[in-house]
Amino acid sequence: MKQKKILLEESEMPTQWYNVMPDIPNGMQPPLDPETKQPMGPEKLAAVFPMGLLEQEMSDKSWIDIPEEIQEVLHIWRPAPLVRANNLEAALGTKAKIYFKYEGVSPSGSHKTNSAVAQAYYNKREGVKRLSTETGAGQWGSALSFATHKFGLECKVYMVRVSFDQKPYRKSMMNTYGAEIVASPSPDTAFGRKILETMPDTAGSLGIAISEALEDAATRDDTKYALGSVLNHVILHQSIIGLEAKKQMEKAGDYPDVIVGCCGGGSNFAGIMTPFLTDKLEGKNIRFVGVEPASCPSLTKGKYAYDFGDVARMTPLLYMYTLGHDFIPPGIHAGGLRYHGMSPIVSALVRENLIEPISVHQLECFESGRLFAQTEGIIPAPETCHAIRGAIIEATRDLNDPKTILFNFSGHGMLDLSSYDKFYSGDLHNYEFPEEAIAEATKNLPQI
Amino acid sequence: MKQKKILLEESEMPTQWYNVMPDIPNGMQPPLDPETKQPMGPEKLAAVFPMGLLEQEMSDKSWIDIPEEIQEVLHIWRPAPLVRANNLEAALGTKAKIYFKYEGVSPSGSHKTNSAVAQAYYNKREGVKRLSTETGAGQWGSALSFATHKFGLECKVYMVRVSFDQKPYRKSMMNTYGAEIVASPSPDTAFGRKILETMPDTAGSLGIAISEALEDAATRDDTKYALGSVLNHVILHQSIIGLEAKKQMEKAGDYPDVIVGCCGGGSNFAGIMTPFLTDKLEGKNIRFVGVEPASCPSLTKGKYAYDFGDVARMTPLLYMYTLGHDFIPPGIHAGGLRYHGMSPIVSALVRENLIEPISVHQLECFESGRLFAQTEGIIPAPETCHAIRGAIIEATRDLNDPKTILFNFSGHGMLDLSSYDKFYSGDLHNYEFPEEAIAEATKNLPQI
Repeated sequence: MKQKKILLEESEMPTQWYNVMPDIPNGMQPPLDPETKQPMGPEKLAAVFPMGLLEQEMSDKSWIDIPEEIQEVLHIWRPAPLVRANNLEAALGTKAKIYFKYEGVSPSGSHKTNSAVAQAYYNKREGVKRLSTETGAGQWGSALSFATHKFGLECKVYMVRVSFDQKPYRKSMMNTYGAEIVASPSPDTAFGRKILETMPDTAGSLGIAISEALEDAATRDDTKYALGSVLNHVILHQSIIGLEAKKQMEKAGDYPDVIVGCCGGGSNFAGIMTPFLTDKLEGKNIRFVGVEPASCPSLTKGKYAYDFGDVARMTPLLYMYTLGHDFIPPGIHAGGLRYHGMSPIVSALVRENLIEPISVHQLECFESGRLFAQTEGIIPAPETCHAIRGAIIEATRDLNDPKTILFNFSGHGMLDLSSYDKFYSGDLHNYEFPEEAIAEATKNLPQI
Repeated sequence: MKQKKILLEESEMPTQWYNVMPDIPNGMQPPLDPETKQPMGPEKLAAVFPMGLLEQEMSDKSWIDIPEEIQEVLHIWRPAPLVRANNLEAALGTKAKIYFKYEGVSPSGSHKTNSAVAQAYYNKREGVKRLSTETGAGQWGSALSFATHKFGLECKVYMVRVSFDQKPYRKSMMNTYGAEIVASPSPDTAFGRKILETMPDTAGSLGIAISEALEDAATRDDTKYALGSVLNHVILHQSIIGLEAKKQMEKAGDYPDVIVGCCGGGSNFAGIMTPFLTDKLEGKNIRFVGVEPASCPSLTKGKYAYDFGDVARMTPLLYMYTLGHDFIPPGIHAGGLRYHGMSPIVSALVRENLIEPISVHQLECFESGRLFAQTEGIIPAPETCHAIRGAIIEATRDLNDPKTILFNFSGHGMLDLSSYDKFYSGDLHNYEFPEEAIAEATKNLPQI
């Protein structure tokens, strides 16, 4: 029998994160101060982030040590398995080899926990007592609830309304870890109250929830803010996925022709592919495919421009692919992919043609997710279904030229089964993003 | 840093199951034909079980090969990790060492999948097209749904009404694997219709659901029946848990003073402890503690007698601890432990004083489960909370005499979070089993 799972011992877990920024051709555009439109230093951001994370956000070092306290918590579930999806391959009738990195083994069930633990640690180290954050699908909120509890911090989570209503078990999980949760827009912030007045029935969005969590942190001395994707330090923390996967592919005696991941804010995809980027820059024949939902297609239909990360225009201006900061995506069920922007790192790599973005519709994603569950056992989160769909496209593109595919299984779907119910009962539909909506949504981009 | 997880490679997974029956002092009492009251041979049981399983049910061989086809499916998640619960130990302020065998990694989230795969395989091998079964908490039903899909069988699941209503996501999971699910008692069987007439509002019970599934199998040529616990062949399949754990404890350079598990039908507890039994019989100082709910205390308050396994009196008579076959336990949330009887193997070991049974209340179990989640990250199933409660009792009994404890983490609680919600909101209560109820429930035991 062939080996199915490629495991690493705890002693083989990477002890440094990989920072891709110094390796990005033509570099990164700096974040801008929204008032002065000048590059923004760490001082001004220190109101909402601890210095330990800001140093990482702007670091030019390629390797950054993972503190022992963080390693110890990561050992609860890491290293994560690399698995050969041989049963899926057989069902597809392909000779392509499909591997997936299984991040669903973390306490909250997704890759998000990798950065949550690091962020809680650096905040704790600098004396912060409480973190505020937003969550879309609930995966980041659960992850940060767990991590803050581990380091003895309080946690307040602003959860996008549509997910709050559809995923009650995510709340139970956050309750279990002792966090406080509220649906966003909420009456707990001035910005939330303002939105509720004008759009009382809104499904909410990550952009709105970020504004609320930022306001919370900005108005309380004991509180800082934590973001689960998009930012450079989050992608740094997620690099552990790709670093492990690289060791594991080597153990398997294989190397990927293509790496696939789903893209919401960009961190899980960047986490798995950035450690392979230098190989590509050195001439290795490897492709990186980022899969986004057709209903929120920032990479494939957005503009590459400076924009705010939130609706209330509180964040610095980030240079990224964006659908416009006041774009509210339709309430599709892949909640974690409902973000108007995209990580500046992923955006820069797309612009450099180092990442190929594609967009897919949700019905084909759920279909792929179900096939995966039936063959490989694990029910994937709706976000992860996008990565699976991408992997299946690559595996079946040309049956005479089978490739070795590695995709990031970002999280399990145990708390997303109501979405599957809707899929089975025919209540889900595809959403074609109207071209005119792009023009409308991006007309308020800030002038630089 | 100390190693937290003790892993095995697939090549180290046991390739034989351990059959404890030949090692049970004074042997086992045979099942009896309910009509003749004489020992029952395999011929009569062949209407509902395939011969491959019946041979195992009555085998006197200590070791039975695991067919390669089964090993291959088990490799999807096995070997399962052994984990040192050092964070829980620290929170308890104990020097006791607590290890747990993590069975939550299986596709359906519990140990049940170990036997489901084996049962589906042997049925398939003998040309069976369809399996019927019952499920309490939904873990067995999910496991069998997955396993039957893997081997191309159809599956019909009779799910105890109280779980059907409380755990909608279990249904979604079984749907994902393509099974048919109905709440029990159901209108789909004559026995179900009879119960619905007299007790239209009943919460149902495993005893009723078993009768329905048996009737389904007995009345259809293409269908056989599958049971997720109690029977000897199920415990045989679950021995892989203890066999792996034994190798892993050795790798950790440790040996358990006490092994703890929760007891519903008995299979997960027997699965982890039976491979250690011969050590005890050879004089090793090791204790086995079986933890049952105070609301359904078959081992601590039941009678040791021949009884039916189901309410409709369709099963053979099994010699076991029982609360009486027509006892319907209160609708506590640890659904998988709501069974009137107990595996004959576990019963025999209790009678021989080789297993120590204890009973615990559900509130302390949920409290223990929450502490476990906050320290070790993983949210346990309510059934598993009973094992954790037992492990905590052992770990804190005498702080001056710290022990090495191994418990079976039978399943995660991702699909049980509504029970946690009820616990947090104060809607759960303990249930003291009334002494008079025992006399009442056992007065209809068959006369042998």
